Amino acid sequence: MKNVNVVVIGFGNVGRAFVKLVSLKRKTISEKYGVNISIVAVADSRGVAIKKEGFDEYEMLKMSELPRSGIYMFSPYARQGASIKEIYEEVEPDIHIELTPANYVSGEPGYTNILFALRKGVHVVTANKAPLVLHYNEIMNEARARGLVVKFRATVMGGTPFLEMLGSMKSHEVEKVEGILNATTNYILSEMHENLIDFDQALKKAQAIGVAEADPSLDIEGFDAAAKLCIVSNVVGKPIDLKSVYRESLSKITLKDVLDAIRQGQVLKYVATLDLQNKSAFVKIVRIPKENILAQVNGTLNAVRVKTEATELFFVGKGGGRIETAHSVLDDVLFISLEKVVKK
Amino acid sequence: MKNVNVVVIGFGNVGRAFVKLVSLKRKTISEKYGVNISIVAVADSRGVAIKKEGFDEYEMLKMSELPRSGIYMFSPYARQGASIKEIYEEVEPDIHIELTPANYVSGEPGYTNILFALRKGVHVVTANKAPLVLHYNEIMNEARARGLVVKFRATVMGGTPFLEMLGSMKSHEVEKVEGILNATTNYILSEMHENLIDFDQALKKAQAIGVAEADPSLDIEGFDAAAKLCIVSNVVGKPIDLKSVYRESLSKITLKDVLDAIRQGQVLKYVATLDLQNKSAFVKIVRIPKENILAQVNGTLNAVRVKTEATELFFVGKGGGRIETAHSVLDDVLFISLEKVVKK
Repeated sequence: MKNVNVVVIGFGNVGRAFVKLVSLKRKTISEKYGVNISIVAVADSRGVAIKKEGFDEYEMLKMSELPRSGIYMFSPYARQGASIKEIYEEVEPDIHIELTPANYVSGEPGYTNILFALRKGVHVVTANKAPLVLHYNEIMNEARARGLVVKFRATVMGGTPFLEMLGSMKSHEVEKVEGILNATTNYILSEMHENLIDFDQALKKAQAIGVAEADPSLDIEGFDAAAKLCIVSNVVGKPIDLKSVYRESLSKITLKDVLDAIRQGQVLKYVATLDLQNKSAFVKIVRIPKENILAQVNGTLNAVRVKTEATELFFVGKGGGRIETAHSVLDDVLFISLEKVVKK
Repeated sequence: MKNVNVVVIGFGNVGRAFVKLVSLKRKTISEKYGVNISIVAVADSRGVAIKKEGFDEYEMLKMSELPRSGIYMFSPYARQGASIKEIYEEVEPDIHIELTPANYVSGEPGYTNILFALRKGVHVVTANKAPLVLHYNEIMNEARARGLVVKFRATVMGGTPFLEMLGSMKSHEVEKVEGILNATTNYILSEMHENLIDFDQALKKAQAIGVAEADPSLDIEGFDAAAKLCIVSNVVGKPIDLKSVYRESLSKITLKDVLDAIRQGQVLKYVATLDLQNKSAFVKIVRIPKENILAQVNGTLNAVRVKTEATELFFVGKGGGRIETAHSVLDDVLFISLEKVVKK
């Protein structure tokens, strides 16, 4: 049995879902892959909980039910106000899991945390896009220099192994990646088409069921999709800058636009395109014939088309969802555990 | 620069396309990944060509234009009638590429060749399905015991990284894999629906353009799709036997069946299903509503739906095609080169 110590930094929806998933899956995983995943520390914005020998199944379940920013209450393991530096002083993780929220201005706290982990010789799994979008090269160079890996499949089409697949197509010259990469806006558009309601109503509904956030601007202004295009561009080795992605706001769409499209046998989709031959990237409202396969990707589904010099692929799956994303994080953890962590 | 010696065993459509692809891509790959792929031997059914220091770009191009079973003519490197044993006496490959034809009765010559390579301490990439279908465990145990890997993404949806993706979903409990996994029969069906021709005519057309073989029984009797289900079942860790896959022959389909389906707004598809919850697998002619996403996968395209306890994915891409398949073989070679071959 290979024991793998992990620390979970950031404890929102995905963090909770991940800890819960590990509590449920740990036994099966150890039987199937000979890997024992041991969560030795969890941090949120107000504190940390540390247990050197790893939390047991019951503790993990309990922890995943704590209120927001409530790790400091998890006695006897909690330390109010403690930082990740203190975690690393007490435990020796094999994998650092970065699940802090994305800040596209500073990339923090993710960027500092990831570099800190790498400099301590620890592999990283991240679901936080911002550090990769703003500092991809710095992070990867730091990792490479130390023989470490940074995995991040949860950042694009987060409920699927899309990035893993794309990264494995190393013999291909990727020419174009195009698709519906943001679940919130696709849900809003689907609602507008299906129920013929206006944008504000659709947004309110999305917020009511938790598909859109209270401040939905990252999704609606195309930031989230643009950030994903940046990550994709780095994975295929042709990096583009977040600022160079042209973004059209979805908020300008009206019910009249939707009705006009429907009358012409079309649907409106919010499409993100990375055109590597023309070195351009954009997030736009696009009219698509309703027979087109992309027109049929509705609700919180994501879809992507990849065109290379040799082939074309089309892929549909969940963009996010906390459980699906937790699976993606765990898949990355398992990859590192099996391929990179040396048995002690 | 990491030098990686490869031997290519089997020199049909995919073998030629692979050697040609390496001649065209080698420079880009060495610049991008620091890996120099050196083809040191090529074998077909009548002979081998060996060059210890690796064939140059021009020789590879020339070789890929040889007539069938014509490697013995490739002077001054050719040895008529030589076997793979002689190759291994002269060169020390890092990767063995098995591209011999599939024989679902014996698994030969692929099975013996793959075991031979593994016992010599050499990683394996195979596009030949039969050895995996008949002897998956023996092969994987042999590899594992020696710290070697066997990669085979070209065997299912061969023009795509589908298997790579599926294999990376280690935290998921796969419940069902279902799709159009055989390009030849999907082409025949698409022809019947589009041009309202009968089965024999559609088959003849497929043979004329090289989509079907002279003896098309492996495709039409569902053997090929069934074999792919077996490989998928092994990848997800719930192996089923080739004999236990129920197969309906596509040859019994008539133009009348197609017309009946069309009149009811449906299309007929030859669908392969691996139902892991009920431990059953079948290849059947299925009626599908024409709005269904699977109904729109036509010609030589393949498509697959993967259902796990946590999510559902849908994936469309080329089932085969020699160039696409050669890319998949090369992607596997690159994975092994980057992750497993130690710099000398």
